[in-house]
Amino acid sequence: MTAERTRVDAKKLTNFTTKVLQRLGVPEEDAQITARILVASDLRGIDSHGVAHLNMFYARRIRLGIINLNPKPKIFSRTPATATMDGDQGLGFVIGHHAMVEAIHRAEKTGAGFIAVRNSTHFGATACYAMMALEHDMIGIAMTNTVAGVVAPGSTKPAVGTNPLAVAVPAGKKPPFVLDMATSVVAGGKLEIARREGASIPEGWAIDKEGKPVTDPTKEVHGEGGLLPLGGTPTLGSYKGFGLGVLVDILCGVLSGSSASILQESTPETRGNASDHFFGALRIDSFLPVENFKKSMDEMIEAFEALPTLPGVKKIYVAGGYEAEIEKDRKANGIPLNSKVIQELQELAKELGIEYDL
Amino acid sequence: MTAERTRVDAKKLTNFTTKVLQRLGVPEEDAQITARILVASDLRGIDSHGVAHLNMFYARRIRLGIINLNPKPKIFSRTPATATMDGDQGLGFVIGHHAMVEAIHRAEKTGAGFIAVRNSTHFGATACYAMMALEHDMIGIAMTNTVAGVVAPGSTKPAVGTNPLAVAVPAGKKPPFVLDMATSVVAGGKLEIARREGASIPEGWAIDKEGKPVTDPTKEVHGEGGLLPLGGTPTLGSYKGFGLGVLVDILCGVLSGSSASILQESTPETRGNASDHFFGALRIDSFLPVENFKKSMDEMIEAFEALPTLPGVKKIYVAGGYEAEIEKDRKANGIPLNSKVIQELQELAKELGIEYDL
Repeated sequence: MTAERTRVDAKKLTNFTTKVLQRLGVPEEDAQITARILVASDLRGIDSHGVAHLNMFYARRIRLGIINLNPKPKIFSRTPATATMDGDQGLGFVIGHHAMVEAIHRAEKTGAGFIAVRNSTHFGATACYAMMALEHDMIGIAMTNTVAGVVAPGSTKPAVGTNPLAVAVPAGKKPPFVLDMATSVVAGGKLEIARREGASIPEGWAIDKEGKPVTDPTKEVHGEGGLLPLGGTPTLGSYKGFGLGVLVDILCGVLSGSSASILQESTPETRGNASDHFFGALRIDSFLPVENFKKSMDEMIEAFEALPTLPGVKKIYVAGGYEAEIEKDRKANGIPLNSKVIQELQELAKELGIEYDL
Repeated sequence: MTAERTRVDAKKLTNFTTKVLQRLGVPEEDAQITARILVASDLRGIDSHGVAHLNMFYARRIRLGIINLNPKPKIFSRTPATATMDGDQGLGFVIGHHAMVEAIHRAEKTGAGFIAVRNSTHFGATACYAMMALEHDMIGIAMTNTVAGVVAPGSTKPAVGTNPLAVAVPAGKKPPFVLDMATSVVAGGKLEIARREGASIPEGWAIDKEGKPVTDPTKEVHGEGGLLPLGGTPTLGSYKGFGLGVLVDILCGVLSGSSASILQESTPETRGNASDHFFGALRIDSFLPVENFKKSMDEMIEAFEALPTLPGVKKIYVAGGYEAEIEKDRKANGIPLNSKVIQELQELAKELGIEYDL
């Protein structure tokens, strides 16, 4: 794998992605927001949610006309700390960015800000929005519903999305705590990768329509069988993963005035496009002085890192710690893109009449 | 098991428990709050957090003088939606109750209310506090840190508590959504039960100091080996359960001005007593009309309940649905207490000079 990868400069990649999106009809500012978030995912090693999806996810859907490139999002609010937003089917990155800015703005005034968003589209990596709170010394929260692909414990029909949730918390000298997790055992992207590589998947990720473990990822067919909720089996707590998935459905789908994944219809063309989100921000200095908080975060993280490790384990990471190391490397040495992604970007450039300068 | 159980009336049990607590020195109103929460746990089938703990946990700790029976909790607040509370080492039920009332009060005014609580003690079942929001048509959130008993992925030394989190969401005709989950594969109570019954535990709940699965629950010794975080193994997502546990530590311990579980010291006598909490409330009508929300919740829950089931599975439950069925039965027919618990309550009554009238 590594041999087929080429390192690409993050700034150049951001500029290139911005140009591609502009050529597809996305207004300049929105194209910049989107490119920045896509490349931020790549920088942190979330390759499944970066520019690798630019062609297949976003360019394709823009061309299909199922994303509104000039949305007029509306905000409804009756209280200072909360609001609902209608995303007018805009590009998820843009809608998500504005909604998170709104949550932060409300937290500045009241200590807490929460925004439920309906009628948006796929917004990439959830962590990127939660992390927007960090520079404001706030705790950031982001979640999104996704198309139903995860079974409920005791059933084999997909009933809930992989519904990721992310929380970002600033630290002092240490990297921020950034938890970004699908509420299923694994996100759909891990099956995609296994399929692409012709690899088998471990027992415990997915089941077939009879409830038997699936180890051949090509056998996992949407609609019959699906991914397992975090915990995997009832004995090992799968009601918890399922419960968290339903919670994300409630906060994103139900509370925003949209609906739960299980009730949302899609066609093969629109599948995975529509989505609803939920964002939150909590101002740390409304609980205690920021300095004290950050010092205490550093002490906690250092205590975890000082834990004894099992043979073969180099280091204990707290959520976000590993991604921070990847980011440091990729900012200095570029983002490794595999040859297939590079080929796609080159073709996209050619089609749109843009110079491929990466 | 069932044969040894006697059904006890919930109201009588609440009155009895109130009297016990009063005799132990708890002021009347605080005794009532505590008794109500303990019995509410029993009513919902959370037997591990009900009156079974009255003697061993609370009476013992009150007698040891490690709970302040006349606390003066202090609230610090700089913003309308948020506050920090110092619980003055009061009884966790009382401190938790007041803090959740405060969160609800702030949500009434601003749409959202969040309270981080330090210097409290064990508060029983987390769900009880989240559920206080339901009658106000709010979403309730509650969490608490607990003594470190869960290992980090890649280590075998307990580093984080079982740190439960609960979220309660009102529905219309259907029972409310109530998720209450330890962030470990199982809560410590399940090991306690297995120990008491001389039963073995499934592989995947706990590991020993070499990282090997523990199936004999008496072999799981605190300090060396411990419970596994939700997910169980790195392949099946244990970083997620660990991340959620650390998140609870951050919101309860760090944000309140206390500290993370990994940094908290305890002696065998004080072990499991001290704790910090986090509470939140979100006003539903600040997002959308309550009627629409509840209708949409019902539709979602009905869709889950209509899912096809695997052979041997009678019904798909959404979080809180099973507990609502137990509650209905126990309200009508009494709470089944096992003979050991009854014996303990009888002894407690005798010691304190109270009539045992259950």
